Amino acid sequence: MTRETGTRHRSSVSQQPAVEDLGFARLDLDRVRRTGDPEVVLASHKTPAQTVEALVHLAAAHPDRAVLATRCDEATRALAAGVPGARVDEVGRTVVLGPLPAATGVVAVVAAGTSDLPVAREALTTLEVSGTGADLVVDVGVAGLHRLLAQRDRIAAADAVIAIAGMDGAMPGVIAGLVEIPVVAVPTSVGYGAAFGGIAPLLTMLNACAPGVTVVNIDNGYGAAVAVTRMTRRSR
Amino acid sequence: MTRETGTRHRSSVSQQPAVEDLGFARLDLDRVRRTGDPEVVLASHKTPAQTVEALVHLAAAHPDRAVLATRCDEATRALAAGVPGARVDEVGRTVVLGPLPAATGVVAVVAAGTSDLPVAREALTTLEVSGTGADLVVDVGVAGLHRLLAQRDRIAAADAVIAIAGMDGAMPGVIAGLVEIPVVAVPTSVGYGAAFGGIAPLLTMLNACAPGVTVVNIDNGYGAAVAVTRMTRRSR
Amino acid sequence: MTRETGTRHRSSVSQQPAVEDLGFARLDLDRVRRTGDPEVVLASHKTPAQTVEALVHLAAAHPDRAVLATRCDEATRALAAGVPGARVDEVGRTVVLGPLPAATGVVAVVAAGTSDLPVAREALTTLEVSGTGADLVVDVGVAGLHRLLAQRDRIAAADAVIAIAGMDGAMPGVIAGLVEIPVVAVPTSVGYGAAFGGIAPLLTMLNACAPGVTVVNIDNGYGAAVAVTRMTRRSR
Amino acid sequence: MTRETGTRHRSSVSQQPAVEDLGFARLDLDRVRRTGDPEVVLASHKTPAQTVEALVHLAAAHPDRAVLATRCDEATRALAAGVPGARVDEVGRTVVLGPLPAATGVVAVVAAGTSDLPVAREALTTLEVSGTGADLVVDVGVAGLHRLLAQRDRIAAADAVIAIAGMDGAMPGVIAGLVEIPVVAVPTSVGYGAAFGGIAPLLTMLNACAPGVTVVNIDNGYGAAVAVTRMTRRSR
Amino acid sequence: MTRETGTRHRSSVSQQPAVEDLGFARLDLDRVRRTGDPEVVLASHKTPAQTVEALVHLAAAHPDRAVLATRCDEATRALAAGVPGARVDEVGRTVVLGPLPAATGVVAVVAAGTSDLPVAREALTTLEVSGTGADLVVDVGVAGLHRLLAQRDRIAAADAVIAIAGMDGAMPGVIAGLVEIPVVAVPTSVGYGAAFGGIAPLLTMLNACAPGVTVVNIDNGYGAAVAVTRMTRRSR
Amino acid sequence: MTRETGTRHRSSVSQQPAVEDLGFARLDLDRVRRTGDPEVVLASHKTPAQTVEALVHLAAAHPDRAVLATRCDEATRALAAGVPGARVDEVGRTVVLGPLPAATGVVAVVAAGTSDLPVAREALTTLEVSGTGADLVVDVGVAGLHRLLAQRDRIAAADAVIAIAGMDGAMPGVIAGLVEIPVVAVPTSVGYGAAFGGIAPLLTMLNACAPGVTVVNIDNGYGAAVAVTRMTRRSR
Amino acid sequence: MTRETGTRHRSSVSQQPAVEDLGFARLDLDRVRRTGDPEVVLASHKTPAQTVEALVHLAAAHPDRAVLATRCDEATRALAAGVPGARVDEVGRTVVLGPLPAATGVVAVVAAGTSDLPVAREALTTLEVSGTGADLVVDVGVAGLHRLLAQRDRIAAADAVIAIAGMDGAMPGVIAGLVEIPVVAVPTSVGYGAAFGGIAPLLTMLNACAPGVTVVNIDNGYGAAVAVTRMTRRSR
Amino acid sequence: MTRETGTRHRSSVSQQPAVEDLGFARLDLDRVRRTGDPEVVLASHKTPAQTVEALVHLAAAHPDRAVLATRCDEATRALAAGVPGARVDEVGRTVVLGPLPAATGVVAVVAAGTSDLPVAREALTTLEVSGTGADLVVDVGVAGLHRLLAQRDRIAAADAVIAIAGMDGAMPGVIAGLVEIPVVAVPTSVGYGAAFGGIAPLLTMLNACAPGVTVVNIDNGYGAAVAVTRMTRRSR
Repeated sequence: MTRETGTRHRSSVSQQPAVEDLGFARLDLDRVRRTGDPEVVLASHKTPAQTVEALVHLAAAHPDRAVLATRCDEATRALAAGVPGARVDEVGRTVVLGPLPAATGVVAVVAAGTSDLPVAREALTTLEVSGTGADLVVDVGVAGLHRLLAQRDRIAAADAVIAIAGMDGAMPGVIAGLVEIPVVAVPTSVGYGAAFGGIAPLLTMLNACAPGVTVVNIDNGYGAAVAVTRMTRRSR
Repeated sequence: MTRETGTRHRSSVSQQPAVEDLGFARLDLDRVRRTGDPEVVLASHKTPAQTVEALVHLAAAHPDRAVLATRCDEATRALAAGVPGARVDEVGRTVVLGPLPAATGVVAVVAAGTSDLPVAREALTTLEVSGTGADLVVDVGVAGLHRLLAQRDRIAAADAVIAIAGMDGAMPGVIAGLVEIPVVAVPTSVGYGAAFGGIAPLLTMLNACAPGVTVVNIDNGYGAAVAVTRMTRRSR
Repeated sequence: MTRETGTRHRSSVSQQPAVEDLGFARLDLDRVRRTGDPEVVLASHKTPAQTVEALVHLAAAHPDRAVLATRCDEATRALAAGVPGARVDEVGRTVVLGPLPAATGVVAVVAAGTSDLPVAREALTTLEVSGTGADLVVDVGVAGLHRLLAQRDRIAAADAVIAIAGMDGAMPGVIAGLVEIPVVAVPTSVGYGAAFGGIAPLLTMLNACAPGVTVVNIDNGYGAAVAVTRMTRRSR
Repeated sequence: MTRETGTRHRSSVSQQPAVEDLGFARLDLDRVRRTGDPEVVLASHKTPAQTVEALVHLAAAHPDRAVLATRCDEATRALAAGVPGARVDEVGRTVVLGPLPAATGVVAVVAAGTSDLPVAREALTTLEVSGTGADLVVDVGVAGLHRLLAQRDRIAAADAVIAIAGMDGAMPGVIAGLVEIPVVAVPTSVGYGAAFGGIAPLLTMLNACAPGVTVVNIDNGYGAAVAVTRMTRRSR
Repeated sequence: MTRETGTRHRSSVSQQPAVEDLGFARLDLDRVRRTGDPEVVLASHKTPAQTVEALVHLAAAHPDRAVLATRCDEATRALAAGVPGARVDEVGRTVVLGPLPAATGVVAVVAAGTSDLPVAREALTTLEVSGTGADLVVDVGVAGLHRLLAQRDRIAAADAVIAIAGMDGAMPGVIAGLVEIPVVAVPTSVGYGAAFGGIAPLLTMLNACAPGVTVVNIDNGYGAAVAVTRMTRRSR
Repeated sequence: MTRETGTRHRSSVSQQPAVEDLGFARLDLDRVRRTGDPEVVLASHKTPAQTVEALVHLAAAHPDRAVLATRCDEATRALAAGVPGARVDEVGRTVVLGPLPAATGVVAVVAAGTSDLPVAREALTTLEVSGTGADLVVDVGVAGLHRLLAQRDRIAAADAVIAIAGMDGAMPGVIAGLVEIPVVAVPTSVGYGAAFGGIAPLLTMLNACAPGVTVVNIDNGYGAAVAVTRMTRRSR
Repeated sequence: MTRETGTRHRSSVSQQPAVEDLGFARLDLDRVRRTGDPEVVLASHKTPAQTVEALVHLAAAHPDRAVLATRCDEATRALAAGVPGARVDEVGRTVVLGPLPAATGVVAVVAAGTSDLPVAREALTTLEVSGTGADLVVDVGVAGLHRLLAQRDRIAAADAVIAIAGMDGAMPGVIAGLVEIPVVAVPTSVGYGAAFGGIAPLLTMLNACAPGVTVVNIDNGYGAAVAVTRMTRRSR
Repeated sequence: MTRETGTRHRSSVSQQPAVEDLGFARLDLDRVRRTGDPEVVLASHKTPAQTVEALVHLAAAHPDRAVLATRCDEATRALAAGVPGARVDEVGRTVVLGPLPAATGVVAVVAAGTSDLPVAREALTTLEVSGTGADLVVDVGVAGLHRLLAQRDRIAAADAVIAIAGMDGAMPGVIAGLVEIPVVAVPTSVGYGAAFGGIAPLLTMLNACAPGVTVVNIDNGYGAAVAVTRMTRRSR
């Protein structure tokens, strides 16, 4: 006698028109109006079919703007590649559907090392979908401080910084002491041993001596991009 | 000179007739009389053959009611599919044998996101085997509060709630502040980074500001269903 | 130019009549109607004056029923003792104001050891305020199993169990295997060394082999009592 | 033969004129020019005399603007109270010296419960010193959702939110799903048991389902205020 | 200019005749004389060839007694199966070479569930190699207490108990309250979620209310068997 | 309408004559017959009056043997000192009442450093009460290996070892490699920083390379003494 | 409108001639002049192609000295094997390009067990590339202390020790009590259960009773070798 | 029948003349000959009388050199102040007895903030007692990088660095990228919230991107000083 929400025909009687019921998901079609954040599907823990179906429905409901799927594994990316117009990023593991907005402003996306690139690319794609410009700076960890100092003015010229680092996670705090713009720090799971899958850089960033730093979840390039878009939207 | 309990003929001399000794297991044939909980085999850490053999013996000892195996991996489900009358759930990873009882009462099984469906289905199947009715509500996380509020009355009409969430695990506490029925919270391993395989939602639920919440182990849909059945049995 | 909600006269313009604004707190005057849970003030992290003022206002708004403060330190209990009609429990660290409801039903409150008594008393007082009857059983830990088995029938006769234990926290799981009623387990901070202030019994209870167990926060006698009241209310 | 930096006369030969050497500290007199952040002394782990001396020197070096000490214990606040012009906040544990800038913009400082007030007040004072306007909203935790929803429009009207919560830490994520401005979440050490001194709300916030949230250290009202000032400065 | 110990001919000049240098290992040929413990090779983190070569050398140095390899993965067991006289246990993942001693005394090896059998078998084989008799009792967890109580006298008749349990790990403490012999508890990695790979039962056992319990590492059947052999050797 | 077990007159109707009900405790008067372990009161988390009353009742019920209270704080020891015949150990924080049994056998109690003495003394007193002889060896940590090697023969001559160490906790494993008797390791909370109140030595001991080691809870000298008494009882 | 640093032609306008921009990496060509440490590529989290390209560029920029890649997985080692002159170590997972410097001095590389060899070999190769001589001693754990004591004089004759151990991690502290040279301890992930992937030996080493010990990250043979080279460089 | 080592007259029959038995301690009189490290008493977990007695005996046994007590609380320092010739450091919490050796070489002791001074002073005193010269640099954290860069040449001129930092612990890694001498990093318990009493800077240092860093225990200024003395002794 189990009654389930999931039969698709029931969604037609939903009293919340801004929700679409796919049976396995209730799409929040209203997020952009309410929060300004992009429409997104988090692919991890979903089947490839679930992710792609959700993404296609989001795109259909928002024909005028891009929608995004993140954390797409290889099978999901392969399936998505068959969707007309889909743009797949193999490094950042994202899929985008629909027209990109014009970009305004600029966010410096700074990655401490080459191994942090997947997270940086997830952030870059999210910024694109959100209509926020970006400037990528890679491999400027604090072990060779001159590499970072050489990029200081370029970073300081942005509206905000997304600072991405694994291992000791020291770079975001150093940057925050050099510039006056907001710094959103992203710890990554890059490292080994006592890096504990990102716990070490996460703690470093939460304890950064320089006070302009705020932090998002480990490897969360998407969340960092949404947050800096909220920060920079008003000033543009 | 090692003496082992496990030789099957020894079980005949057991002084506890309500235990059946399979060599590798001592089936508790008496649980339903003692606790009212359904007969169950936890398949993880067992071989497919051990699980299926134990399930078949439980069914034979209880011809009048359904018995259940949970956490069945693909090989176990495949083996079980060959047992006459077995009902296999590929999403919830359960196998059921024997006649289902009539369902009475209704438990709202509320899953925050699509990715929490496997845990929800394990709970639903356990409720079925326990003779408890269910109403499944999916994808009502707190990030889009209107999706949850739209289902509030439906949830409040149930006898109890099983509230399932990963990531921040905030949904069960919000529900407990909206209804007057018991809320059993199930943290799931859905999430990444600082979700730590379910620790984050587990802690959120244990610290829920609304006091009606009790919590079970991470991903433990089965345990939640048994607990709410105990709660609702008397009032039916 | 900081604008604060806290000036008391502003509360008169509140659009939510069921909230009273004390400046430092917004009392939820509506909880009992919405959830059936008792009105409560959590005293920890509050000054004695804040706790007592909040409690007095809650009582004034609910003249027909008892209201409760928990986790009251010595100074708070001393201040509260001067409030006419206040009932102070020095062991359970609670203060109660207002008329108690008639008690219906019975919950077995089982504490593994003498040291768990403060948590048991917090649960007992909350049950009283909630109109739920109680039967206290103390010092029946599993190290001397005969002490527990001797109380088995008495426990089984209740509508639900609150099972309170520190150290190894094994008692609730053993009880759940002996009875058919819901078991809400409360880990306590009783113990030393690798008990880690209650983490050890918390984990034991979350992993209890017997499936009827649900768990609340460490030392949370209040939450356990509210939860079992939700469970037993309907059947009475 | 230990040579120490600390003798005060050596500071005159410092090649960095923007550093003042007090023997036990090298004041960074240059921070405001470089980062825009206010001059601050973190009093914890310092003697009262060290804190007050450092604060007085900072004030003397910046006669045209306010300087700040945070985490001042009772002895430090008592000593600071004797400094002419010092403004001491007993709840927020701060001391301020020097003229406040005019406030522009508005940041909603939202505290889930009364017990979170000390952290909220530290944030408010830091905003004042930073020239950022503020609107304080207290006791709007998610256990009584109507209290939060009633303040939704007021929060949404701000330039940014500082969302402060202990225990389950669920409030910031709920807010981020309701507004389009940046949300800086501050976990607090309010709670007990499995709140683990703020770890539970910290994890909840890092895993918030709503993506606009960034997080600072436990109880770090100061850091949150500096961060949102960086965020809102440009748009003013 | 790196000098290595590892060239085999160097071992001939070793001043410790009781050590044999295989290049990659220095076999401790003297352990049995010094400690009475059996000669053993821990196969994990070694290549199959390293494990088998070390075992064969140990056997050659001790023609009069059995030697043992533990934690042998499938490849190692396959390679070992080709060694004349090798006895391979596929469940316990052990390989034994050489003549077994006569068994004296009896140790009760009690496993809470079927899934704990691999650890139990590692303990049984180690007991065999050590010349200690054993009596295996399986599936007597505390969720069905009558199964354990039915075996109480059989367990009490042994010289010592090895009590093996995962999940809540409650069984060893309950046994220690029922018998007067030493109880060595072995937590296993059986379980899921908040069992944390054996941490939960490990903590339970360290905090056992009954004081006769001592504990070994997670899944360490070998170590438990060596320890009880030391305990029972003298009394035989 | 709360019914409590605790009124003393109810104990007269107890169907378990071997339990005495003090209202706040149910004394297990039967432990020595069932397990051979000494009668004990764990004073921590109890009031001084509760501890002393329980101890006096245990003594009265067992006039022919000594009973023990452990973890007695200063107030408890002061109160106990007034009980005729009480023997108070200020270092080991124990109180003993009643006649000591004759001691047989010998256990080496080895403490790595002076700071481990309180735990060693708790073990010594428990051994005395249990009728087990002891030989105390102090300050033989592995940093000065010659101090330990000089005592090797003395330790090896015992029936078992209680090896007590904080900080790196390396000593028990080194001893286990030198002797053939059982080694019960007791981690202590001695140390600082990354010793984490005893976690570091606890982990060291659980991972000891030498296999004869079993482990008890941090600072648990009492438990170690009970365990070795069980081990050595039979051989005497 | 994303601008990226990564287009190779942009590196020509870099104002830091000692940095080479590969698009995905900014090689620090200047490290040896600044710190004396060898040029290195950490292969983990990089694609094989990225690692090998970076290594080849480093070698080209430093024709007169060896450069190193560490943590090379099988695919990376296979790709690197095709580079003329590459020297691949399958056990230590390193690749070296370019002429080795003459070795001076001697560092004792002491591994507790055979399973620690991969870490030892990573250290040995780094020492070779750094021009530091080495003496490898394997399988001298403290469970058989005579094996270690037999090598004492050989270890004491070195300029420094790299002491490598998993499991209980006790060996480095014991060595530090026997010699007067610096001891750099490397915890390894060798072990199981409560070894927690190297946390247990890490804590042991940080808490070593003998004070000459400093510690590097788990499995970090490379870092240990660089550190001891810094230590011994001056005295040569 | 407990036999104790501790009666002072027994020490005369000790077969190790380099050990003095005080009853509660066995002084290692031989450490300096064996390891070159200074004689030391760790006062924490000892009574003031035990510490001072041990220190006086060490001094008497070594009239030609200084001996040291660390971690002395206020009572111990007060008692020690009465010993003729004792030199007490109230900040570093040390007591020194006996003539200091001439200092050779120079170690840069760099403290990130004023709050790290107690640890720095413990290191300085240990260096003095060890005959190693020192240069103290305070308050050069990475939040104001120019303060650190201004001291770069001074640090680089030393033989080694002791780099002391709490909170994010980023400074030692930055220094290691700027100099070619050994860097011993000391995490301190300075910080709050997610600094977790020093865990955050400890992890940062273990994961430092620059490879010259080795790490000691939290707040362990003493151990760092002994380690760098071992490092620099040979080159002097």
